[in-house]
Amino acid sequence: MAVILQYKKTSKPDLSLLLELTKHDMGRVNENILSHTGSHVKTIPQVANYLIDSGGKRIRPMLMIAASQMCGYEGDHHIVISTAVEFLHTATLLHDDVVDDSDVRRGKQAARKIWGNETSVLVGDFLLARTFNMMVKTGSLECLNSLSGAAVTISEGEIMQLAAAKNTSTTEDHYLQIIQAKTAALFESACEMGAMISNASEEQRQALHAFGHNLGIAFQLVDDALDFGNGSGLEAQLDKNIGDDFREQKITLPIIFAYREGTKEERKFWDRTLKQGDQGDLDLQYAITLLAKYDTLKKTKLRAEHYASKAVQALALFPPSEMRTALEQTVAFCIAREK
Amino acid sequence: MAVILQYKKTSKPDLSLLLELTKHDMGRVNENILSHTGSHVKTIPQVANYLIDSGGKRIRPMLMIAASQMCGYEGDHHIVISTAVEFLHTATLLHDDVVDDSDVRRGKQAARKIWGNETSVLVGDFLLARTFNMMVKTGSLECLNSLSGAAVTISEGEIMQLAAAKNTSTTEDHYLQIIQAKTAALFESACEMGAMISNASEEQRQALHAFGHNLGIAFQLVDDALDFGNGSGLEAQLDKNIGDDFREQKITLPIIFAYREGTKEERKFWDRTLKQGDQGDLDLQYAITLLAKYDTLKKTKLRAEHYASKAVQALALFPPSEMRTALEQTVAFCIAREK
Repeated sequence: MAVILQYKKTSKPDLSLLLELTKHDMGRVNENILSHTGSHVKTIPQVANYLIDSGGKRIRPMLMIAASQMCGYEGDHHIVISTAVEFLHTATLLHDDVVDDSDVRRGKQAARKIWGNETSVLVGDFLLARTFNMMVKTGSLECLNSLSGAAVTISEGEIMQLAAAKNTSTTEDHYLQIIQAKTAALFESACEMGAMISNASEEQRQALHAFGHNLGIAFQLVDDALDFGNGSGLEAQLDKNIGDDFREQKITLPIIFAYREGTKEERKFWDRTLKQGDQGDLDLQYAITLLAKYDTLKKTKLRAEHYASKAVQALALFPPSEMRTALEQTVAFCIAREK
Repeated sequence: MAVILQYKKTSKPDLSLLLELTKHDMGRVNENILSHTGSHVKTIPQVANYLIDSGGKRIRPMLMIAASQMCGYEGDHHIVISTAVEFLHTATLLHDDVVDDSDVRRGKQAARKIWGNETSVLVGDFLLARTFNMMVKTGSLECLNSLSGAAVTISEGEIMQLAAAKNTSTTEDHYLQIIQAKTAALFESACEMGAMISNASEEQRQALHAFGHNLGIAFQLVDDALDFGNGSGLEAQLDKNIGDDFREQKITLPIIFAYREGTKEERKFWDRTLKQGDQGDLDLQYAITLLAKYDTLKKTKLRAEHYASKAVQALALFPPSEMRTALEQTVAFCIAREK
C-alpha cells in the first residue's frame, strides 16, 4: 500500500443507531429465518437454529436492510434477501467448523461437536440451497447473480485459505486476496443488493459495493487481531477463545508481520508451530509475546483503519441522513470492538 | 403398494439412441463443464474435473437435453441448465463421500482420499454456488426455482438417510421417502426444466416431472440391489465395489425385505452388523446369502420395474418420436443394467 489512509475518528463507535433504524425490519427478518429453517426433517431446524440463535451480531443482514433503506426502498423483498444473506453466512460457518476442526463457535460448542461433521455438512448444504431457493421469490435475477457470485467467491476464498494454512511465507497481498474473497464478498453483495432492489443508480450500487468491500476487509482484519486477545498474552491462559487461528495453523496478518520482521530464531519458532504444527503448552503465549514485540496487532488495526476510511468515503456519495450516520458509526464500531 | 405394475419389456434396454440424439448438445455441455470449473484457485478445477471425468454416465444432464429436445426447444439455455444439473450432482457426490467416509467412487479413489475432506467440502460448495450462478444466465426464474428446490430436497433426503442409517426397523415407506428426496428430486427437475425452457404446456411439464420422478426411483432401487452384486455372494470376495452400503450401515430395500421376513436369529445378525456396526470378514457374504434366501434382490428389481412402468406411461402424453423411443429404451436400460 503506497498511502495508508488515516482513519479520522469523527463517528462514535456505536451500533445502537443502526440497531434502532433496522429494528422493525430485522424483527421481520428473524421471523422469516425461523420459517425458512423449517423442514419435515427435524434435525434441520435444530441445527440451523442452534447456530442462528447463538448470538451473532447479524451485521450482514442488517447492512442489507440499511442499504435498501438508504436507497429509499419501499417494497418487501429486502426481508427475503436479508434472510438469504444470513442463511448463506450460517452455511459457511457450519462448513468452516468442519474444515477447521473447530470445537467452539461464538462461545458455544460447535454444531459439529453435538451433531457430528456429517450433519453439519448436510445442514450447511440445506441452508445454501434454501438461500437461492428463497431468492427466487424476489424475482430479481440481478440480486440472484450478486449473491450466487458471492457464494462462488467465498468458497474460492476458503479454499485459498486452506492452501495457505501452514504456509509461513504467505505474503500480505495473498492474505488480502483471501480475506477479500472469504469475508468481503458477502459484505459487498449484502450492501449492493440494497441498491439493486431499489433501482438505485449504478453509481450508488458501486458506492455500496465499495462500502461493503472495505468494511468487510476492515472487519476481518480486526477479527484476526482480536484472535490474539489484547496482546498481553494474559488472556491466553484464561480465555479459550483466544488463539484459535494459531491452533488451526492459520496465517493471518499479525503473523505475517511478525514473521517478516522476525529474527532467524523467531522464524524457526513460527515454522515449528505453524508449518509443522508442533505446538506445546507455552507456545501460544510466546507467539503473543512475539506479536507484541513487533507491535503487529496495532499495525493490523491500522490497516483495518485504512479500509474503514475508504468505507466511510464511499458513503459520501449519499446525501447526509440518519442512516448514513448510522453506517459511519457502524464502521467505527467494527474497528473499535474488542470481541 | 396396492397394485404392483408389471413392466412390459417392449423397449430394448439400450442407451445408444439417447446417446446419439443428444451427442451434439452433450459435446457442448462437456465444453461448458470444463469452462465453468475454471477458477484462479487451481485446486478447484483439479478436484472438480477429477470427479467429472471419472466416467459417470451423465444420465441426468442427458435427460435434461432430451426433455428439452422432445419439447421442441430451439434456444441455447439447455446447455447451461444441463451443465448446472451435472454440477449439482457432482457437488452432492463430493459431500456424500465425506459424509459416508467412502474410499472409492466410480472405481477410483474418492476425491477426499486424495485432497482430504476439507477440500471436498469446499469444492462441493464451489460447485453448488456455481450451479445457481450459471443458472442466472438462463434468465428463467422458473428453472431456478425448480433446481434450487431440488437442491433443498436432496439435502433433506441425505439428512433423512443419515438419521435412518443403522436403523434396522426402517420401513419400506420411509426408505421410499428418502430415495425420492435424495435421488428422484434431481431427475424430476432435470426433466421438467426441459418443458419449462420450451414454454411447453403445464401438462407436458407435469408428464416430464412424473417421468423423472419414477425413473429416479427405479434407478436408485436398481443401484441399491446392484450394491450386493448378482446375489451369488461370489463377487463379494473379488469386487471391492460390492457391499458399500452394508459397510456404511445403510438400510436399503433388500435389507428391509430380509429383515422383515427374517427369523429371530437373522434379525440379530442384521442388528449386530448394521445397528451396532460390528462386522467381521465373513459377514458380507452371509448377508448376501440371507438376501438370496428371501429373494430380496429380485423383489427390489420388481419394485424398480413398477416405477419404470410408470415412467414409460408418463411419456405417453407425448406423440411418438425418435426421442420418446430413446427415453423408453433409457428406462429399460436403467433397470436392466448390471453396474
